[in-house]
Amino acid sequence: MTETILEKTEGLVSYHASVREMLERLREDNMSNVFDRWAAQEKIRCKFCLEGLSCQLCSQGPCRISERTGQDRGVCGIGPDAMAMRNFLIHNIMGAATYSHHAYEAFRTLKATGNGQTPFGIADENKLRWMCEQLGINIHQELNAMAVQLADFLEAEMGKDPEEPSVMVEVFAPQKRKAVWRDLGIYPSGVVHEEQNAIASCLTNVDGDYVSLAKKAMRLGLATIYTAQIGLEMVQDILFGTPKPHEVQVDLGIMDPDYVNIVFNGHQPWAGVATLLKAKLPEIQNRAKEAGAKGLRIVGSIETGQELLQRYEVDDVFCGLTGNWLAIEPLLATGTVDVLAMEENCSPPAIDHYAEKYQITLVSVSNIIGIPGLKHNLIYEPGQVNATADRLIELGIENFKKRTGVIKPKVPKNIQKAVAGFSTEAVLQALGNNLDPLVKVIMEGKIKGVVALVNCSTLRNGPHDWNTINLTKELIRRDILVVSAGCGNHGLEVAGLCSKEAVQMAGEGLRQVCNLLGVPPVLSFGTCTDTGRISMLVTALANHLEVDIPQLPIAVTAPEWMEQKATIDGIFAVAYGTYTHLSPVPFMTGAPKLVKLLTEEVEKLTGGKVGLGDDPQEAADGIEAHIVEKRKALGLS
Amino acid sequence: MTETILEKTEGLVSYHASVREMLERLREDNMSNVFDRWAAQEKIRCKFCLEGLSCQLCSQGPCRISERTGQDRGVCGIGPDAMAMRNFLIHNIMGAATYSHHAYEAFRTLKATGNGQTPFGIADENKLRWMCEQLGINIHQELNAMAVQLADFLEAEMGKDPEEPSVMVEVFAPQKRKAVWRDLGIYPSGVVHEEQNAIASCLTNVDGDYVSLAKKAMRLGLATIYTAQIGLEMVQDILFGTPKPHEVQVDLGIMDPDYVNIVFNGHQPWAGVATLLKAKLPEIQNRAKEAGAKGLRIVGSIETGQELLQRYEVDDVFCGLTGNWLAIEPLLATGTVDVLAMEENCSPPAIDHYAEKYQITLVSVSNIIGIPGLKHNLIYEPGQVNATADRLIELGIENFKKRTGVIKPKVPKNIQKAVAGFSTEAVLQALGNNLDPLVKVIMEGKIKGVVALVNCSTLRNGPHDWNTINLTKELIRRDILVVSAGCGNHGLEVAGLCSKEAVQMAGEGLRQVCNLLGVPPVLSFGTCTDTGRISMLVTALANHLEVDIPQLPIAVTAPEWMEQKATIDGIFAVAYGTYTHLSPVPFMTGAPKLVKLLTEEVEKLTGGKVGLGDDPQEAADGIEAHIVEKRKALGLS
Repeated sequence: MTETILEKTEGLVSYHASVREMLERLREDNMSNVFDRWAAQEKIRCKFCLEGLSCQLCSQGPCRISERTGQDRGVCGIGPDAMAMRNFLIHNIMGAATYSHHAYEAFRTLKATGNGQTPFGIADENKLRWMCEQLGINIHQELNAMAVQLADFLEAEMGKDPEEPSVMVEVFAPQKRKAVWRDLGIYPSGVVHEEQNAIASCLTNVDGDYVSLAKKAMRLGLATIYTAQIGLEMVQDILFGTPKPHEVQVDLGIMDPDYVNIVFNGHQPWAGVATLLKAKLPEIQNRAKEAGAKGLRIVGSIETGQELLQRYEVDDVFCGLTGNWLAIEPLLATGTVDVLAMEENCSPPAIDHYAEKYQITLVSVSNIIGIPGLKHNLIYEPGQVNATADRLIELGIENFKKRTGVIKPKVPKNIQKAVAGFSTEAVLQALGNNLDPLVKVIMEGKIKGVVALVNCSTLRNGPHDWNTINLTKELIRRDILVVSAGCGNHGLEVAGLCSKEAVQMAGEGLRQVCNLLGVPPVLSFGTCTDTGRISMLVTALANHLEVDIPQLPIAVTAPEWMEQKATIDGIFAVAYGTYTHLSPVPFMTGAPKLVKLLTEEVEKLTGGKVGLGDDPQEAADGIEAHIVEKRKALGLS
Repeated sequence: MTETILEKTEGLVSYHASVREMLERLREDNMSNVFDRWAAQEKIRCKFCLEGLSCQLCSQGPCRISERTGQDRGVCGIGPDAMAMRNFLIHNIMGAATYSHHAYEAFRTLKATGNGQTPFGIADENKLRWMCEQLGINIHQELNAMAVQLADFLEAEMGKDPEEPSVMVEVFAPQKRKAVWRDLGIYPSGVVHEEQNAIASCLTNVDGDYVSLAKKAMRLGLATIYTAQIGLEMVQDILFGTPKPHEVQVDLGIMDPDYVNIVFNGHQPWAGVATLLKAKLPEIQNRAKEAGAKGLRIVGSIETGQELLQRYEVDDVFCGLTGNWLAIEPLLATGTVDVLAMEENCSPPAIDHYAEKYQITLVSVSNIIGIPGLKHNLIYEPGQVNATADRLIELGIENFKKRTGVIKPKVPKNIQKAVAGFSTEAVLQALGNNLDPLVKVIMEGKIKGVVALVNCSTLRNGPHDWNTINLTKELIRRDILVVSAGCGNHGLEVAGLCSKEAVQMAGEGLRQVCNLLGVPPVLSFGTCTDTGRISMLVTALANHLEVDIPQLPIAVTAPEWMEQKATIDGIFAVAYGTYTHLSPVPFMTGAPKLVKLLTEEVEKLTGGKVGLGDDPQEAADGIEAHIVEKRKALGLS
């Protein structure tokens, strides 16, 4: 693999050739698509909204803050900093609640599984025992009973109020952070109460102080990671196996029109796993063949795809991951998709037109999805997931019969290899179950530091995944190991950065370490939901070294954050104590005190802060400078 | 009392003379105030925001929909109807979560009271027994134990998931509504899950279908009223007594600068009641006198004021209610307030400047309030409320010493009598514990129908309370009984509409009934939180007549809704099956299909619908026409 330099030229919409190729078809077919809608919106952006100085919450609004023309407050009296921070907190809350929704589904799935009501089992007994041991649950009991008890425990943790200390926070938070959070008044309780308090604070005329609002955001971020996200990730490991690195294939070229293709899209793997288990049965493959197909395949799209990818081998039935959310419309236009099964974001609203044009059956497998005119709504119930899988297969085969012959497929040739499935356990295993080798290569400077890249993909900074990929190249070139998650991670996988061949793009020190361990310079750690998983590795490192998080030569970057879960991950990272690069700049540039708080002053409080910058080179400079500073403070060269 | 006709002239900011008088001082003092900020914002309103066609949720935005210039979708692909409905649902969620916050505080207060940890007791034993009986809780146990059990039960109800049927909905929903809600898929579970599902649905690329979003709003509305609001109202009755009608005094003239004045502002009465109980002790009055005051007074502002007003007599210590939220800044400018204790909306953000200018000590008594520079944050804990009351009194006395001599008070002369404290029980009692007399006067047409007026106060439709008061006058003139709650209710109280003298403004039939029963033509039913209480009366009427809600000659109006709790009350009313007049028009006029759904099509689904209209006369015409139609369908003339 040689390094591709892709210039950010006028009209370039995506880093990925496959996506650019499909866009041609979309334009020929006159399909409304995200790339052209972006260009249209660019002409009429609202400056007030961009700066965070617009509020539509109450009937005395909409208000704008414009000091130039004399409106320095909204009608209620709110100033620019609180207005922007409140808007941002509302986004944070949306992210927190979505993770909580996912966590709740995970916990009740574990419970139902323990009670024998799902097709799933306890795939990782050790992790079940480990979690129970951590949380003080009796491990000398039958596995299924233990699973039920753990599920109840984790659900109760989400509902903990400030009067009851959270066990999840106590167990999983870095030892030296707790006092910091207590002193600041951001030590969290269960995410349900934190959400409710945060939302009630955002009501008109309740919290008009940007500092208070920012603290609520940080507290909510901590509650989200510790009482929702980490629990849900561990439960998914228990149910479906802890990820282990293995080679997979990605990009749109994995699609084969001659198969019945059932695509799983979203973040929550329940129906996807259940259908994959079924699809491996010869009787199902035979049914597909009877319908004239070569067989039936399960296809992973965005985060649900990643959840499958990090745990299951790519084979005759599971054919890999297509890409991230900006690749969904291009994927649908290949004319190869029989069922798109959706359960969380991103299920873009205009794909009803794609379903019609390219003969696709859209199916919701969750209680939150809504697409105009959606006919198939198989709301998730753990006990019904097998029936859902049956129905999806049935719909897929029916659709295949209608699709073939009517729709001319167009599939880009691009298929890329990647190594997926890193996890704290996998990293430890690669290191011989000891963090010292990692510490050693960091101390020696072979690895200068570690950056967690967690984010989405957006067109704001230029072409699809351009910023994510170029920043990552810059980081690994500077001997900074990248641990990646989220839609950005899929972008890196598709671009080849998660393949072993990418080692040649790394600086010399990092290259040596990667070659020694046989790993790529970018470790694919899963989905945005795996933010907690990444933090567990960092926490383990900090506890091992007996230092606090802000002392470590690490950083977080979200170089193309798009939706609201990314914002709560970001604000968590600031509270957790890390330098957190966010691009695009959140809608708060009109709020100077708030910007100063988040990019400077907060460092004195939590040790973390937000770093800005939309250029990959500059962002890498900022991150590297931070890492070098931390190395110096630790006495490392 | 003779009817005042107040023309909506240029520059008129409020219906109330006292508020207009105080605005003069505010302007003389160069104080930023809500009325002048309104005028400033009027010059730069965003048309897109007003029409619901602006979205700032993700980094691909901000987006605007402008069919004229070709942007008929946001970048994600969302269309105008879903964009506007999603914005509205976000507001609904904020309202629901705030009511849930209030409910949670109520339930844990009841529990702590049962456990002997608060200064409160069981003020209404009958209501405690009645609630427990309704919910299947053993009533043959000691009262405090029963209270604790009820508190736990109600808290658990809020957390019920869709797998566990809600007892609160089963017990309190109108008998004939349940099948309607089940068929529509809007039968609610506990409000916590409904909130979480609704928020996760609003995430970018999750629910892009306006019909699906509207159904989620209705379901959330039902969950809010049945699993949060009704429980919290009943608990407040149990703790502080069920409201009974009695004469009170209102308006800014109740303020006396010679007293230590502690004002309670918000919606949650915990600290207010605790302080009122203490303030009645001679030792406290003596302490105030020693500081040079004539004594210490508790003053009610907005909904917390109304919670006190509907349960406690106005006397030497509790001096009544000042007005609604638009009267807060005018109240503070009187220079008579020593402590403003805040626990929910409306705590306007810019009052830090008022505190400085007029020597007021601002105190938060909740975990959600934030005012820039706030020094006193006494977060509510039921077991600490007595200490909070002590501290408030201390701060009040300290402030009095600083205030007097420094600040020249200016207090308008206006004091108005009103009858407050109606409740389902009080209405039944007035009728001899039998709904038949009410049915009879409705059948005879003496009372043409009943309208529940629940809302805030806004400047969008013209002067403060102008629309609320003029619509109410129109309704009672047409023999329509008004049952009022919320900030609008305070506007009516201050304007004299809740006094017995207002009977002369009523039509002949209504006048006769009012005179017979000795009640005003507008029954003050409390706060916006009492929406559930009003629905209980209507539900009792429907069950008594064995009809469904949409068959009754009733309507709901929110002629000056302002914040987000009003929106969830409104959407509840539509699901509940009532004609629901909303003014101002919510931000959805750019969404034609959504407007049609909410103002027309939904009637076929729930029997309820939204009625629009910003002119009081026209709004009254719409309401009357609806009532007349329902009367006809019931065979009444």
